[in-house]
Amino acid sequence: MILEICTRAKAVSIELAKLSSETKNKALRQMAEALIANVSSILLANRKDVNAAKASGLKAALLERLALDQRKIETMARSLHEISELPDPVGEVINTWTRPNGLIIAQVRVPLGVVGIIFESRPDVTSDSAGICLKSGNAVILRGGSDAINSNVAIGKILRSALKTSGVPEDAIQVVNSPERSLVEEFMQMRQFVDVLIPRGGAELIRTVVEKAKVPVIETGTGNCHIYIEEDADLEKAIPIIVNAKVQRPGACNAAEKLLIGEKIASGFLPRVVKALRAKSVEIRGDEWTLKLVPDAIRATEEDWYREYLDLVIAIKVVRDIDEAIEHINKYGSKHSDAILTSSFEKAQRFLKEVDSAAVYWNASTRFTDGNQFGLGAEIGISTQKFHARGPMSVQHLTSTKYIVVGNWHSRS
Amino acid sequence: MILEICTRAKAVSIELAKLSSETKNKALRQMAEALIANVSSILLANRKDVNAAKASGLKAALLERLALDQRKIETMARSLHEISELPDPVGEVINTWTRPNGLIIAQVRVPLGVVGIIFESRPDVTSDSAGICLKSGNAVILRGGSDAINSNVAIGKILRSALKTSGVPEDAIQVVNSPERSLVEEFMQMRQFVDVLIPRGGAELIRTVVEKAKVPVIETGTGNCHIYIEEDADLEKAIPIIVNAKVQRPGACNAAEKLLIGEKIASGFLPRVVKALRAKSVEIRGDEWTLKLVPDAIRATEEDWYREYLDLVIAIKVVRDIDEAIEHINKYGSKHSDAILTSSFEKAQRFLKEVDSAAVYWNASTRFTDGNQFGLGAEIGISTQKFHARGPMSVQHLTSTKYIVVGNWHSRS
Repeated sequence: MILEICTRAKAVSIELAKLSSETKNKALRQMAEALIANVSSILLANRKDVNAAKASGLKAALLERLALDQRKIETMARSLHEISELPDPVGEVINTWTRPNGLIIAQVRVPLGVVGIIFESRPDVTSDSAGICLKSGNAVILRGGSDAINSNVAIGKILRSALKTSGVPEDAIQVVNSPERSLVEEFMQMRQFVDVLIPRGGAELIRTVVEKAKVPVIETGTGNCHIYIEEDADLEKAIPIIVNAKVQRPGACNAAEKLLIGEKIASGFLPRVVKALRAKSVEIRGDEWTLKLVPDAIRATEEDWYREYLDLVIAIKVVRDIDEAIEHINKYGSKHSDAILTSSFEKAQRFLKEVDSAAVYWNASTRFTDGNQFGLGAEIGISTQKFHARGPMSVQHLTSTKYIVVGNWHSRS
Repeated sequence: MILEICTRAKAVSIELAKLSSETKNKALRQMAEALIANVSSILLANRKDVNAAKASGLKAALLERLALDQRKIETMARSLHEISELPDPVGEVINTWTRPNGLIIAQVRVPLGVVGIIFESRPDVTSDSAGICLKSGNAVILRGGSDAINSNVAIGKILRSALKTSGVPEDAIQVVNSPERSLVEEFMQMRQFVDVLIPRGGAELIRTVVEKAKVPVIETGTGNCHIYIEEDADLEKAIPIIVNAKVQRPGACNAAEKLLIGEKIASGFLPRVVKALRAKSVEIRGDEWTLKLVPDAIRATEEDWYREYLDLVIAIKVVRDIDEAIEHINKYGSKHSDAILTSSFEKAQRFLKEVDSAAVYWNASTRFTDGNQFGLGAEIGISTQKFHARGPMSVQHLTSTKYIVVGNWHSRS
């Protein structure tokens, strides 16, 4: 079954690469309208999933992600409209030059071909991913969590019928409608058909896909983000940034999970920032030094330094100097987003250069790592790997390039 | 042992990312000089490999690739000098912009980190790959064929001592000096340490690496390249291009392996081009139509259409029209380099757009797909995948990017 799905996706990808921007944008708008026109049938399907999940005892946080309502569906539709307004990356001429022998060479942007998305129980991923893939001229195969299968299938069906009325082949969007696990395993081996796999979800899902896939994978999302505050920082201005990075949306991958404090300012600053964080209900963990200054904090274990809490928890460590801060981040971090707060240009330059993460910040909250915040438009995830794409992945990152060479009957001498 | 090598490479990669262009270029020049100064010890080590290979009955073509001489070593040295003269990709500011809220964002080029090269019995790959990786700020781990182990270890030792005198950490270049197979298997799993694996060699090697690796792989080199000659082509001018693409260097991956001929010109043109190819000792295989026109040609099997001969052999097929040509190439080709010969602008546009290959040509020989011919400088291979890099891979393709974000104490609202 998965072989058939992949074969159809591959076949249709050739057609999709040829679509005009107008056709794709029209289809995106019709997809948005179809979602709105079918709110009740989506909610009906979603209700089935939610009831089953409740019966099986799914955790509240996951239930919340699974459950749709009118507002969430409107957001999905709005997101499709926004994608329709982005510039079309396909066909962009990146560079063109003429060789001394007269050969004209152009490097142009083309779709990747077939994108596989493996995700958990968030049905809104279905329409977001489908929109981004269509805009970038790719066929998409969506395999969501079995908890959300009724919702995903319903959304997929609605999006496909919108494609049909827009003159885009329906198989541009395919939802795998079987919850069988062996199917995913098979899917991850389809290197001949699938050009990239993007897992969207928790660290465990991502690890599994990376371990098992033969298809190239883009790792997204795990964010063990750090803020390092240095003795030359403006301590007054620093506190709101640290609080913002931790509490504005603790479940987001770009939320700060760790705070490193230079030892020269620790005794004065650490209790103050702890007070500000606790005022927002943040649980404080820390190293020995932190515990001396804040005796009722929880002692952080070695494992804490690696962890992404995705919750109102922060671990604090006092570091000797910028060397120790950089070393700590490069060792324990997830290469997502890390910030230095300092008024020293030299120290900032060192941090920005030597911290090996997708986004490095000077005097700003890590919460800005996001396609829209960066001005890149809708994103399909934040890549934490260096290969192919790094940081917020917009429609452009679902493309490759090709060289077009025009000769005048040239042979190589 | 491979774990130690990988750990050292990872550790040193942080230092390499910080090296100035001057330091790297000086090291490259010293590496070149060291090769020339040590020609005799390289040749001595190579002699051991060649003798052992002869004794074990290695094929002549492979022996030729294995054997070094003064001239080959001079070419290796010249190549290092050329790499030293290329622009340094590291630190390049690709784009910079300011967001409406005043955040300044820059996207800058950074090294990938650690590059693994798995190759066969061509010792010159050792110095070429080491040079390209050093220039792009990456640590390299080289694992060559066991046939060439003495040569590779000797070259590695010389390059490392040149690094030492240039102030570059020696572990920037590491040669795996054990021929054990289990070691390669282990190497391919080192995702924590190695950022990309590039297999350089035959189709079998590449297939194995793609199958077994957990580290991201770039597939390079397999070239089942096509030329499609169309009824509107200038037949006189076409013949030298076809002959050039086939015979100028039949062992190269960008040599033409297949010729597709439009049926309207087949009866007149096919015998003529066969005559020209046979004058250069090319063996002719073909479909039924070809055999009717050239009865002593060999009948091509289904498998022939997939094959890369790397030899003075070509298979010819008569096609109905451009649709069949494009379909055939997309089905049987290796997505490397494919050409159309035609005077029709419309048909050329269709071919260039719809043939899904790294390089597509109009009225030129496929032999131009090459870093130097494209003006990109030394290359580490021709990528035939769409992920990360496609086509000739120069120093720039061994880099990633990072986002540098400078705020004025910005929090996200």
